[in-house]
Amino acid sequence: MTIEWETLLAPYKQAVNEMKIKLKGIREQYQLSSRHTPIEFVTGRVKPVSSIIQKAERKNIPLDKIEEQMQDLAGVRVMCQFVGDIDTVVGLIRDRTDFEIVEERDYIKHKKRSGYRSYHFVLRYPVHMIEGGEKRILVELQIRTLAMNFWATIEHSLQYKYSGKIPREIEERLERAAEAAFLLDEEMSQIRGEVQEAQQIISKKRGSMEKSN
Amino acid sequence: MTIEWETLLAPYKQAVNEMKIKLKGIREQYQLSSRHTPIEFVTGRVKPVSSIIQKAERKNIPLDKIEEQMQDLAGVRVMCQFVGDIDTVVGLIRDRTDFEIVEERDYIKHKKRSGYRSYHFVLRYPVHMIEGGEKRILVELQIRTLAMNFWATIEHSLQYKYSGKIPREIEERLERAAEAAFLLDEEMSQIRGEVQEAQQIISKKRGSMEKSN
Amino acid sequence: MTIEWETLLAPYKQAVNEMKIKLKGIREQYQLSSRHTPIEFVTGRVKPVSSIIQKAERKNIPLDKIEEQMQDLAGVRVMCQFVGDIDTVVGLIRDRTDFEIVEERDYIKHKKRSGYRSYHFVLRYPVHMIEGGEKRILVELQIRTLAMNFWATIEHSLQYKYSGKIPREIEERLERAAEAAFLLDEEMSQIRGEVQEAQQIISKKRGSMEKSN
Amino acid sequence: MTIEWETLLAPYKQAVNEMKIKLKGIREQYQLSSRHTPIEFVTGRVKPVSSIIQKAERKNIPLDKIEEQMQDLAGVRVMCQFVGDIDTVVGLIRDRTDFEIVEERDYIKHKKRSGYRSYHFVLRYPVHMIEGGEKRILVELQIRTLAMNFWATIEHSLQYKYSGKIPREIEERLERAAEAAFLLDEEMSQIRGEVQEAQQIISKKRGSMEKSN
Repeated sequence: MTIEWETLLAPYKQAVNEMKIKLKGIREQYQLSSRHTPIEFVTGRVKPVSSIIQKAERKNIPLDKIEEQMQDLAGVRVMCQFVGDIDTVVGLIRDRTDFEIVEERDYIKHKKRSGYRSYHFVLRYPVHMIEGGEKRILVELQIRTLAMNFWATIEHSLQYKYSGKIPREIEERLERAAEAAFLLDEEMSQIRGEVQEAQQIISKKRGSMEKSN
Repeated sequence: MTIEWETLLAPYKQAVNEMKIKLKGIREQYQLSSRHTPIEFVTGRVKPVSSIIQKAERKNIPLDKIEEQMQDLAGVRVMCQFVGDIDTVVGLIRDRTDFEIVEERDYIKHKKRSGYRSYHFVLRYPVHMIEGGEKRILVELQIRTLAMNFWATIEHSLQYKYSGKIPREIEERLERAAEAAFLLDEEMSQIRGEVQEAQQIISKKRGSMEKSN
Repeated sequence: MTIEWETLLAPYKQAVNEMKIKLKGIREQYQLSSRHTPIEFVTGRVKPVSSIIQKAERKNIPLDKIEEQMQDLAGVRVMCQFVGDIDTVVGLIRDRTDFEIVEERDYIKHKKRSGYRSYHFVLRYPVHMIEGGEKRILVELQIRTLAMNFWATIEHSLQYKYSGKIPREIEERLERAAEAAFLLDEEMSQIRGEVQEAQQIISKKRGSMEKSN
Repeated sequence: MTIEWETLLAPYKQAVNEMKIKLKGIREQYQLSSRHTPIEFVTGRVKPVSSIIQKAERKNIPLDKIEEQMQDLAGVRVMCQFVGDIDTVVGLIRDRTDFEIVEERDYIKHKKRSGYRSYHFVLRYPVHMIEGGEKRILVELQIRTLAMNFWATIEHSLQYKYSGKIPREIEERLERAAEAAFLLDEEMSQIRGEVQEAQQIISKKRGSMEKSN
């Protein structure tokens, strides 16, 4: 079977682009209203073809079933400054009507054995096709703090290198790093209220001064 | 009355950004399928506050009514290579379900006395707000050829300079320029089929060669 | 011989990105100073690998000589509103010290037999490499009006389709289109002074109004 | 004295844009050569006018001297994954010839009393002006890890809120957060070699698979 990967993945790329614009728009609305924004930055990607093929082999997904069975062909990620911001973003996502929520998984309350923490949504997102009609595709949305993201990036590289079988010694170092990331998030949470107030003062002051200049 | 312009215009900016991503996505879908794309490029802007105020004065629109009565606070423009491409884009817009069409005006079949040619839509576009719920705002979408756009840009500058009362002599020059733009579009239409075929050959050849390298 | 195309072309991509930022910066400087900008928009591209290979075959360029003998691996294009703007841009390019001019060709005073009009520079542009040191690569810079660009795009497609041997009948249509593009440029030149003044008035008025709002 | 802020700051904006493109280009060169990139991401900003005025008052800088005496009108920031990456970036900066280094400050070896860690350069960067000639302006470049950046952002907000006089209790919390950030960097350094190898394997594998698909 030959797959036209570019054509297959085009609507996924489109969905990633649209979701990024929408999530960045939320950040701008917060900034304009001089409130602490729960969204620090947003990234997105379409899964590389090589990773799709490897995952399909590993999980025994036939190539003609990947659109239904692989939920992260389109992936969007929101990074937050504070753990408490994640709830705010989760609330904003649940409120929207321009896509459907298929699944929610809270790996923050229930972190994975590896130490992985993150909040996941699987969304069904409508993309308009030039042939007419909508194609409703799956998009995975991950919400996490900067520290969670930092650790997850590194763990992902190592899982990949060791094909999921990380040697015990390296696993222990990873665990210590996970604890350090968790500690950083904890310390930051202690100071969150203070920082949010400060950010409001800054953006209000800046706003009023820019006007008078 | 003090208006918080940035806050008022934020959803308009968001709508412009989303529409641009969606229209550029259409172009990419055509390119991927090795077909002539009817969309050459896309621009968008939120009307500058100074222009809003001037237009409100000129048209006697009270400032608390501009959101309903000024249809071009958010403006998006699609440029096409050929006059015939405009119909294709009009068809694609009518097919979509992510906004509503409020009005259509065909200044190509019925060009304005000034020589202005363009196809206009007024859309009602839903923007999600962080306070919850959607705000359904007006967006003006203009579709025109490169030659039409070229002329319209220049006419707009002159209308502005002379507050709508362009001296007779300059008006005559503008008319000759409009005729030259029209002639260019006519000549291009003669050659459209040829060029479209050529573009398909190029993108197919390129596609297959890139794969083998 | 296997060529690592991505690695070979990386500094060309870098040069295109830097040149685009620099040329767009010129446009912004004009806009800020409330003067008509001679630069309407800027595009750039690295030549696709398939086109490089075809051109190398056609012109008998050995693949290990393409960096010296193919001058348009990196291509940047400036579009102007008026023919007279081209001279201004040429002057700005000659003034710069961040690259060297290798060659200039004026296809406006001396248009090609095909009808092609454009002003060309070949530049030697320094790119910093992570291995240390600069790599000084060739970049082709084309400067033309919107009408010249419109026609050139179409002619390029047809040359490609007919491998340089365009049938007589189509060639005649192309010539008529070239004349229409030329006529449009002529008519526009008649009106240039008027439009430039108008643009200054607009940007000054807008600037002063934005400040008071 | 009235200052045309937009005109004054235009070359600073240009320098920020050029530096960002150059630093992102370094990252791409590393990615293409399948090596761990020392540059995770790059941000930049021109100092807001309100902050310039406040800082000028605080430091007694006359407004006609800010270009020489305020070194961070243009600010660019490089974020690294590992502390060890900072040295690599410092080396790359010292190697370049497209700007001059005016000053270096190593707040990593010698962290500030507040807990602030970062590596600073002050550069003299040439911007081409449309009036002819170059303007050589100051640009501040900061290089730091993600954890250092995270902490610094928060400390900056609180300094601002309390006008530099943070209450003792909040200062203590900030110190604990600084320690947590430092610990995270330490744990990451332990694992750096492993992760770098893993990233090379991933990008090589991906590269070779993409080619065969």
